[in-house]
Amino acid sequence: MTASGRQAPSPPERVVARYVLDTAEAPERAAEIIAGEQSSGTFVALARETKGLKERSGAQVETLEIVGEVEGPGLPGAKTGPVLRRCVLELSWPLANMGPSLPNLVATIAGNLFELNCVAGLRLVDLALPAAFAERYPGPRHGIDGTRRLSGVTDGPLIGTIVKPSVGLSPDETAHEVAQLVAGGIDFVKDDELQADGPHCPFEDRVRAVMRVVNEAADRTGKKAMIAFNLTGELDEMRRRHDFVVAQGGTCVMASLHSVGFVGMVELARHSALPIHAHRNGWGYLSRHPALGFDYAPWQMLWRLAGADHLHVNGLANKFCEDDASVIASAQAVLTPMFPQAPMAAMPVFSSGQTVRQAAPTYAAIGTTDLIFAAGGGIFGHPGGVKAGVVALRKAWQAAVEGVSLDDLARQEPDVAAAMGIGR
Amino acid sequence: MTASGRQAPSPPERVVARYVLDTAEAPERAAEIIAGEQSSGTFVALARETKGLKERSGAQVETLEIVGEVEGPGLPGAKTGPVLRRCVLELSWPLANMGPSLPNLVATIAGNLFELNCVAGLRLVDLALPAAFAERYPGPRHGIDGTRRLSGVTDGPLIGTIVKPSVGLSPDETAHEVAQLVAGGIDFVKDDELQADGPHCPFEDRVRAVMRVVNEAADRTGKKAMIAFNLTGELDEMRRRHDFVVAQGGTCVMASLHSVGFVGMVELARHSALPIHAHRNGWGYLSRHPALGFDYAPWQMLWRLAGADHLHVNGLANKFCEDDASVIASAQAVLTPMFPQAPMAAMPVFSSGQTVRQAAPTYAAIGTTDLIFAAGGGIFGHPGGVKAGVVALRKAWQAAVEGVSLDDLARQEPDVAAAMGIGR
Repeated sequence: MTASGRQAPSPPERVVARYVLDTAEAPERAAEIIAGEQSSGTFVALARETKGLKERSGAQVETLEIVGEVEGPGLPGAKTGPVLRRCVLELSWPLANMGPSLPNLVATIAGNLFELNCVAGLRLVDLALPAAFAERYPGPRHGIDGTRRLSGVTDGPLIGTIVKPSVGLSPDETAHEVAQLVAGGIDFVKDDELQADGPHCPFEDRVRAVMRVVNEAADRTGKKAMIAFNLTGELDEMRRRHDFVVAQGGTCVMASLHSVGFVGMVELARHSALPIHAHRNGWGYLSRHPALGFDYAPWQMLWRLAGADHLHVNGLANKFCEDDASVIASAQAVLTPMFPQAPMAAMPVFSSGQTVRQAAPTYAAIGTTDLIFAAGGGIFGHPGGVKAGVVALRKAWQAAVEGVSLDDLARQEPDVAAAMGIGR
Repeated sequence: MTASGRQAPSPPERVVARYVLDTAEAPERAAEIIAGEQSSGTFVALARETKGLKERSGAQVETLEIVGEVEGPGLPGAKTGPVLRRCVLELSWPLANMGPSLPNLVATIAGNLFELNCVAGLRLVDLALPAAFAERYPGPRHGIDGTRRLSGVTDGPLIGTIVKPSVGLSPDETAHEVAQLVAGGIDFVKDDELQADGPHCPFEDRVRAVMRVVNEAADRTGKKAMIAFNLTGELDEMRRRHDFVVAQGGTCVMASLHSVGFVGMVELARHSALPIHAHRNGWGYLSRHPALGFDYAPWQMLWRLAGADHLHVNGLANKFCEDDASVIASAQAVLTPMFPQAPMAAMPVFSSGQTVRQAAPTYAAIGTTDLIFAAGGGIFGHPGGVKAGVVALRKAWQAAVEGVSLDDLARQEPDVAAAMGIGR
């Protein structure tokens, strides 16, 4: 159990992955083709694929449920037929096929199978891993507890924001922006994912300028804002940049997951003394077609194994294309412990168009404040300035926890009332 | 120019990416939103995003061409409207936004933009990079020339195959299979992507057993088959496994690109004294919906920059879902030099259902034999055995180069005639 009351599932003996499959093939046949392709089989029967070998190494169809029919033709290149059926398919593999290895797990559960022509649609929707993965991979080194300790925010969400414009500010301009935020009492600030170490804003210059501001404020007030510096780059660069952040007194680093990849992320986490703010940019190409790619739940498990401490989940009523149900499902997934003995807790990051209005529905849906709540316009757009914007968000969250409605709160708190007009 | 006569494009000053965009927004507006999101802009206008900053750091819409209308509604979550237009959109960024950094390039050209709600479809279809990337990244260390030198195949394609069953064989069983192939005169053998270092077939035991067979044959005949051992794993594992392959006299290693990621691949290539056979498993989830994700051409450029020496392109009349035009476009892309001063040549790998029948159309389409031609059933399925299978493939390729038809060849060569029956 974690603080938010969620329980880890019992780890299975075998690797288990669940897919939503659309197929015009007989579903049992399609399931067998997929299981074969991802284990001992191939397109043609082989003499060496003996019964004993199949029993030892073959993927098994654990469950196959036809849940309905969908309109065709499905993804191009798929075999067509009179009916396109949607199925939930659960496959399992012996751990011995790949061992507790994240990179080899990925090739097994999310490899060639998407290209099979019996597949008119395929989406990985769930994953369960044997306990050996928890023994092999430590997961996030800092997670929720470490983030709270380093940021000094023991209660409520971390109120955060993003340096904007995304790219184009000099180190001094960035520091000037951070100074305003720190003066406003912000808990968390992140670089944009487009800003790492370009020649107009070199990483070390930016960190030095920003940490001067942050450290001065911390010396004065005792509160040190957590700044997620985007160190995305090659491995030696990321290690060097990390060490520089540590030397300057910083408390967080950020990396773009699809830029770095699994092996790079495992190495970064192994090296890092700080929480890793994991940016999911590129998630759209993996998820945006509902019958292809990944649900967030299994995808985020892979990155928690690799060591991600903070994981982006978008936000309610966001400015992107994702609906609220999907955002909440993602946050629930990030908050669910991975193994009974190793929860690998990570912190969900809500962002995009977030204001005081999203506090109550977010809290109602996930029942915890173990999160980062990042607002841009929701802070800078406050007519009373940055400090009023931060304070209003904090009050809105406190009210959400206490069950006080935003309207009631606004009647008492003019800064909250003013914040309710943002984006309207 | 390369041996196959292809020329590298002149490198642009800025990073240039071309997309196919489906949108119900006014196309000019959608293009500006995308350019803004991927550079200095955000959803709300910011005081700090000055004219000077935008000029310096903003992405530019280089071209925007409406190519037609498509049936709606497009990807879920997109804004709808009376008309869904398909556009070709070319964006450019100043190199200074990210510097010549592969991981940061990826976040720029393939980051958040896929999630914008003005995007009803978005696919990256082309990419051009400033010369600074060629100065920063060496690309493939071995490529076509190194592969020919190490395999001893100076002329014609490397005739290759894949160890099957994909997973489940012991090291000795694998070596037994390789022994048959080596006796048959095979040039190239690869592990399956599902087989790396599982407890039933530990990497070092497999390499030792296989290389004993390969080295013995090489001592006897002077021909050493190139074996791509799948070393996919964490960075320290991959380095150790690579060193073990080198110590055993091996000449190639294999890695699954999506398992390893960009940073891991750059590190592996930096360490490797051998060609890296890059496996694209997972490519389906990036590409299978035609209005989402990646074309192969820009995607393979990223991996050549990272150091991939061999790149999978599927094969003509393959058993997967990809059509022939796409396969040929992929192979053409792999064979096209990336920069005038740095071609970063990689070798395309044809596989899946390949037989003597695909030699002539493949050669006709790409005009070179700088490739690996991998056949499973096309070799093991030959009624005359493995050797006859390999010889028939070699003769078919020679005939293709000489302009002799397969039917004419088969009248002279019984092993080719027998090979024509495979899979029929």
